[in-house]
Amino acid sequence: MKKLISICGSDGDDERLAGYALEVAYKIGRLVAQRDGVIVCGGRSGVMESACRGAKEEGGITVGILPYGKDEANPFVDIAIPTNIGNVRNYLVSSTGDVTIAIGGRWGTLNETAFRMISQKPLILVKGTGGVVDDIINHSILRDVEYSYHVVNSAEEAVEKAFELSSV
Amino acid sequence: MKKLISICGSDGDDERLAGYALEVAYKIGRLVAQRDGVIVCGGRSGVMESACRGAKEEGGITVGILPYGKDEANPFVDIAIPTNIGNVRNYLVSSTGDVTIAIGGRWGTLNETAFRMISQKPLILVKGTGGVVDDIINHSILRDVEYSYHVVNSAEEAVEKAFELSSV
Amino acid sequence: MKKLISICGSDGDDERLAGYALEVAYKIGRLVAQRDGVIVCGGRSGVMESACRGAKEEGGITVGILPYGKDEANPFVDIAIPTNIGNVRNYLVSSTGDVTIAIGGRWGTLNETAFRMISQKPLILVKGTGGVVDDIINHSILRDVEYSYHVVNSAEEAVEKAFELSSV
Amino acid sequence: MKKLISICGSDGDDERLAGYALEVAYKIGRLVAQRDGVIVCGGRSGVMESACRGAKEEGGITVGILPYGKDEANPFVDIAIPTNIGNVRNYLVSSTGDVTIAIGGRWGTLNETAFRMISQKPLILVKGTGGVVDDIINHSILRDVEYSYHVVNSAEEAVEKAFELSSV
Repeated sequence: MKKLISICGSDGDDERLAGYALEVAYKIGRLVAQRDGVIVCGGRSGVMESACRGAKEEGGITVGILPYGKDEANPFVDIAIPTNIGNVRNYLVSSTGDVTIAIGGRWGTLNETAFRMISQKPLILVKGTGGVVDDIINHSILRDVEYSYHVVNSAEEAVEKAFELSSV
Repeated sequence: MKKLISICGSDGDDERLAGYALEVAYKIGRLVAQRDGVIVCGGRSGVMESACRGAKEEGGITVGILPYGKDEANPFVDIAIPTNIGNVRNYLVSSTGDVTIAIGGRWGTLNETAFRMISQKPLILVKGTGGVVDDIINHSILRDVEYSYHVVNSAEEAVEKAFELSSV
Repeated sequence: MKKLISICGSDGDDERLAGYALEVAYKIGRLVAQRDGVIVCGGRSGVMESACRGAKEEGGITVGILPYGKDEANPFVDIAIPTNIGNVRNYLVSSTGDVTIAIGGRWGTLNETAFRMISQKPLILVKGTGGVVDDIINHSILRDVEYSYHVVNSAEEAVEKAFELSSV
Repeated sequence: MKKLISICGSDGDDERLAGYALEVAYKIGRLVAQRDGVIVCGGRSGVMESACRGAKEEGGITVGILPYGKDEANPFVDIAIPTNIGNVRNYLVSSTGDVTIAIGGRWGTLNETAFRMISQKPLILVKGTGGVVDDIINHSILRDVEYSYHVVNSAEEAVEKAFELSSV
């Protein structure tokens, strides 16, 4: 069975999406594939596409769990799952990974992050990637409530932590 | 067709859940029922039960969208929907209301709030009820991203706003 | 807590939908409401609308679990649940009832019927209403596999059986 | 993007499940993998396991969409998706394939088959594999209602047809 790493973050419509977040996603895609892990994501543009592109450059496998049809997939998705349930598919992206990594993001990423916390499954937030990820970190959102997230500072650290957590 | 008002907030397991949050939920239940609205919620204890209790005291109708079976329902639920999909049912609670009102809450409420924002449907946050609601308000979470939430200060204001928004 | 009776059957697009099936649905709606039960259905036209109309004529409550938005609801739905998950909502219609009654129907009704069987919750098929219901009865589909359906011959018998089963 | 072929059929609990059905599933797994297709299924035992085993023997990729957790997966699943939504996951198995092939089966397979028909996406039934598949074929269930299924007589014919349909 393959290790699955879910990547959550903004699609390309997000005007605040920084080049740094895309770079982190791309590196994570490469590093996960190098370790024979599978990238799982929402299958669309932005952070998702960068992670898939990185994985494909290393010969990895990518899974895109799409809101509606396969035509929404970015060009680097191998296994496109057309759910036809719209944003409800977020919970599948969030819960499929052995570990989930969040990068920047808006309401969709917040939705996925919160769902992950409810499930009490491992979540990694990459600091400095902006959006809701930095909001959660900087304002210690619900920090006094049972949680299972880890804050890391780079793509390398994220993948190191992800494989460490997924082998527990 | 009835006006549906969804109520999101902590169940009774939340140690941080304040008496004030429960009181607000109870009053909202009463006020919604007085105006012939239907209370929709996750059907369990805490904020959900208080809202249902208030509604029933005024002869209103209550809907509980439950994680698993009907035995999870609080005693004030009329229409118990046993979804058997666990916390994925959160998205149904969140999206069913013509307007959704969030009170206090933890990761589940954050999940429902974020889902509501993605759907761009009206959401009301009751200030001072603690938990994730006050976290979002006080730290202006994603305030620069398209959103459709309204901040109110009391049960009365919440219901006034809810009926105003639901008649648009 | 109210008794919930789910009604499954064709919408008005079904050219094979017989007047008799609509009449049965209408009568069931009336009889369920007379006993203070709630009609749950897919919220649309055809069999669903007839059941809701019957229930409303007796002052009952009706719930419509819709594929997408509230604008899809027939005029006799009180509580319209806009799921936005398309036909995946079928499983909710099927599993919400304490008892589910199937009348005529096509692939959607077959979908709901089969899902009900997997859940091993009580199901009533009204003989003579055509479509997939009569197909299942006449050809003894999967009759040698664990099942929990009951065959009845009229609206009256269906409701009698439904309340008998729901009080177990 | 990979071609995805969904396989529906009984798990190992089905006492009526014939050796022939398992053999067909195994061959389909091999043939799909030989053509670089991906096997998608419910991830469990019986027909699902046979298809996955066949695919793995040819170095293919297999996806298992599981009712609850990853521990339910058969040993030949590469990408295990733990949905935690129970049998509601059937609709995902059914709709993910570019083409879906049904083999034998009980209520779950009937559920998946009916859902596929509603979606009007290509479905192949392998004649002679027993269960609900032969019930649908032999009794021409809903044959006069819009449908998109194809009846084939062997694993070879099934895969030939599947790739023909998926390249449209």
